[in-house]
Amino acid sequence: MHPCMTERIWTAALAVIGDEILSGRTQDRNIAQLATWLNAQGIRLAEVRVVPDRTEAIVEAVNALRARNDYLFTTGGIGPTHDDITVDAIAAALGVGVIVHPEARAQLEAHYATRGGLTEARLRMARTPEGAELIVNRMSGAPGIKVANIFILAGVPHIAAGMMDALTGTLEGGKPLVARQIGCWTGESEVADLLREAEKGHEGVAIGSYPFFREGRTGANFVVRATDPALVDACITDLTRALTDSGREVVEGGI
Amino acid sequence: MHPCMTERIWTAALAVIGDEILSGRTQDRNIAQLATWLNAQGIRLAEVRVVPDRTEAIVEAVNALRARNDYLFTTGGIGPTHDDITVDAIAAALGVGVIVHPEARAQLEAHYATRGGLTEARLRMARTPEGAELIVNRMSGAPGIKVANIFILAGVPHIAAGMMDALTGTLEGGKPLVARQIGCWTGESEVADLLREAEKGHEGVAIGSYPFFREGRTGANFVVRATDPALVDACITDLTRALTDSGREVVEGGI
Repeated sequence: MHPCMTERIWTAALAVIGDEILSGRTQDRNIAQLATWLNAQGIRLAEVRVVPDRTEAIVEAVNALRARNDYLFTTGGIGPTHDDITVDAIAAALGVGVIVHPEARAQLEAHYATRGGLTEARLRMARTPEGAELIVNRMSGAPGIKVANIFILAGVPHIAAGMMDALTGTLEGGKPLVARQIGCWTGESEVADLLREAEKGHEGVAIGSYPFFREGRTGANFVVRATDPALVDACITDLTRALTDSGREVVEGGI
Repeated sequence: MHPCMTERIWTAALAVIGDEILSGRTQDRNIAQLATWLNAQGIRLAEVRVVPDRTEAIVEAVNALRARNDYLFTTGGIGPTHDDITVDAIAAALGVGVIVHPEARAQLEAHYATRGGLTEARLRMARTPEGAELIVNRMSGAPGIKVANIFILAGVPHIAAGMMDALTGTLEGGKPLVARQIGCWTGESEVADLLREAEKGHEGVAIGSYPFFREGRTGANFVVRATDPALVDACITDLTRALTDSGREVVEGGI
């Protein structure tokens, strides 16, 4: 492989759509689970926006995020009720119409055959922007939707997770970001210089410092991230040595 | 009070700053807790962005969000380590310099007097954009920061919560958004028309529909939100009647 190819970083953005997140009613779970899943695909979650169930807000976020990332994911707003406006808003953002997708209709007909039939409200879930493909949903009736570089997922976390499963291995990505963590019972302010030096000494790594207070004591975990596992290992080795030399006990894997 | 005054809606945005959220390492808790706290202040959380620990990304988000909301909150990136760049990025966004705030310095000196003294790394936490005030932090050493309409909070959720406590009652807001919830063991697609009619029949309310699957059964909760409690009650009454008339049992408060 040409060396340049190994350096290409693939990025994705996420638009979380829903008044329930912004009102505090619902604790979002999709940011963390999408981020973790994307890492395994070799794609980096670069930015997230949470927007209300309002067409203009969705259109603005979708157009900003899809333009500057390889992929855009959205969660929420694809159910059968009046507050589910994601499909219409994304079609508006793309400047295309909304159709009843024949395959989605067939799937919903099958799903609801023994559940009271395909009502008008349920048929809403077969609507997609023009030119879309479906993302398999094994959990419930309504499929996810892929259109342009946009992946429209459900808001309910386990249904969204099922859709990610269905997409696993289908998206082009780069090298996954590798992360290793070590921990220390120390205030992070006491080792700030050590951390800075370790990061400087290994170009291409990023070190995150995450303090905590537990069992009456102050500690911190340090996460070293890079695409090259050898670089991560080398940096962890150096940082561990520096911390040990300063008289601290290092817990491999973090505390 | 002049009727117009009662209609003014106060909005806030949140910028969550941190690679640890975008990598999936850390599950964000600040969106939900800030949203809930803001509701009690009569301020609506209008939008959220999650950005990495990169100056340009923070500057862009801060400038977009502070311009179109009454308040902007940020969480994360105000610790003593090299990846804590929030203060510098916000100063850059505002076009002001960064100073060592004398009051913050005094607080940190007192805090670290019995903890090994104020090192250079710890002194980083006394740095603020020019013209800033401090937000009391009773949990740990570093204060929060208020500058222009921006409130810079810690990333660790219980420390951020302490800073919100310190701000309680100090921000001008409007009428709090009132929410009431009812639940039904029904698929939301079966009652989509009822919901739409109930929302249409009460101008100023927004009804959210939140389906779930539990104990082998499908259900949904319906949240009615408005600033006028009487309007919320009237809408809940109508919706409850419509659901009951259709042969469904309604659970007050939600399921």
